[in-house]
Amino acid sequence: MRGIFIVMEGPDGSGKTTQINLLKNYLEDRGMECILTREPGGTKIGEDLRSVILNPEYKEMSSVTEMLLYAACRAQLVHEVIGPALERGAVVISDRFVDSSIVYQGIARGLGIKTVSDINEPGIGIYKPDKVLFIDISEKEGLQRKVQQKKLDRIEQEGIEFHHMISEGYRKILLGREDVITFDGEQDIDTLHQEIIECIDHLLER
Amino acid sequence: MRGIFIVMEGPDGSGKTTQINLLKNYLEDRGMECILTREPGGTKIGEDLRSVILNPEYKEMSSVTEMLLYAACRAQLVHEVIGPALERGAVVISDRFVDSSIVYQGIARGLGIKTVSDINEPGIGIYKPDKVLFIDISEKEGLQRKVQQKKLDRIEQEGIEFHHMISEGYRKILLGREDVITFDGEQDIDTLHQEIIECIDHLLER
Repeated sequence: MRGIFIVMEGPDGSGKTTQINLLKNYLEDRGMECILTREPGGTKIGEDLRSVILNPEYKEMSSVTEMLLYAACRAQLVHEVIGPALERGAVVISDRFVDSSIVYQGIARGLGIKTVSDINEPGIGIYKPDKVLFIDISEKEGLQRKVQQKKLDRIEQEGIEFHHMISEGYRKILLGREDVITFDGEQDIDTLHQEIIECIDHLLER
Repeated sequence: MRGIFIVMEGPDGSGKTTQINLLKNYLEDRGMECILTREPGGTKIGEDLRSVILNPEYKEMSSVTEMLLYAACRAQLVHEVIGPALERGAVVISDRFVDSSIVYQGIARGLGIKTVSDINEPGIGIYKPDKVLFIDISEKEGLQRKVQQKKLDRIEQEGIEFHHMISEGYRKILLGREDVITFDGEQDIDTLHQEIIECIDHLLER
């Protein structure tokens, strides 16, 4: 039986990574094989590409190049990790997936939703997410949390208007979509975790 | 006035690089600015990506990843080098361009001509080649020349059937196309050079 593919989406600083780790522990305690992947990266080739994509020195990178590199990382991740894991029945949780590209490159960089979807189609093929968990948060809150954390990479260094477009972009493409569940990212970590596992339990029961 | 964009295509070992250098000297002797570019690579980001694409250790790279990485290199090359050079009136000669991807990934790897064309469209935009010079050569001759030359990269290490598909693929997509001129790559270097400059002179007169 094919496994379940869960994607966590949301702006920088929304708490995706924390929630993914909590969810992983929860699923493993229930005896399930749980694979975490991150974008960009997650494979040897992908990590090599990640260091190109996020290199703060590459100010000259065109938006189209950026879009294609994210798609390349993703194609390799599906080929090496996500596809095989789903085929052996594991739960895959990915920190971001194609919706991130649609928001960042399609909307914020202005390349268009359709262009980004089309570019990503050959690499994803049959391995579409079963559920996208969207952690919604105001751009101000997200950016504040992120700035406190660490040195910012090339994408995170963008200004507040860019991050505003990201938050709005997520809402535009995710709200109301059948495969998406939206969570309030400004509530505390445990409450959010409880909401997420309720939804996942429901998904696993089917 | 916009410059002229010339692409040299042909299988490995067809003599593209030799002919490009001869052509560059010829054009510069006539006082023209002449820019050479190579694929994959040709920019700082592109050379970084080249070392990923051609790394002989990356046997696990999927065909889709390969296609997207070639397209990413190309998009960056158009953005940084080809576009600006054409805008200031230079002659650009590229060692391979999108037709190489159509043959290698679209035909030989089986991803389809249309898929590869569509993936490359956003990065190329208005900067399509004015003329594609196709150096045709039998796959046996090409491979023999290449093997004598140097250590083979990941693509060159493919077997004879792969290289046969490449030669056939080039003929399939290039022969008869209006923007393509075909040359016999098995004649000697000087004769081939004379044929090429006759064709380029004709192009520059218009």
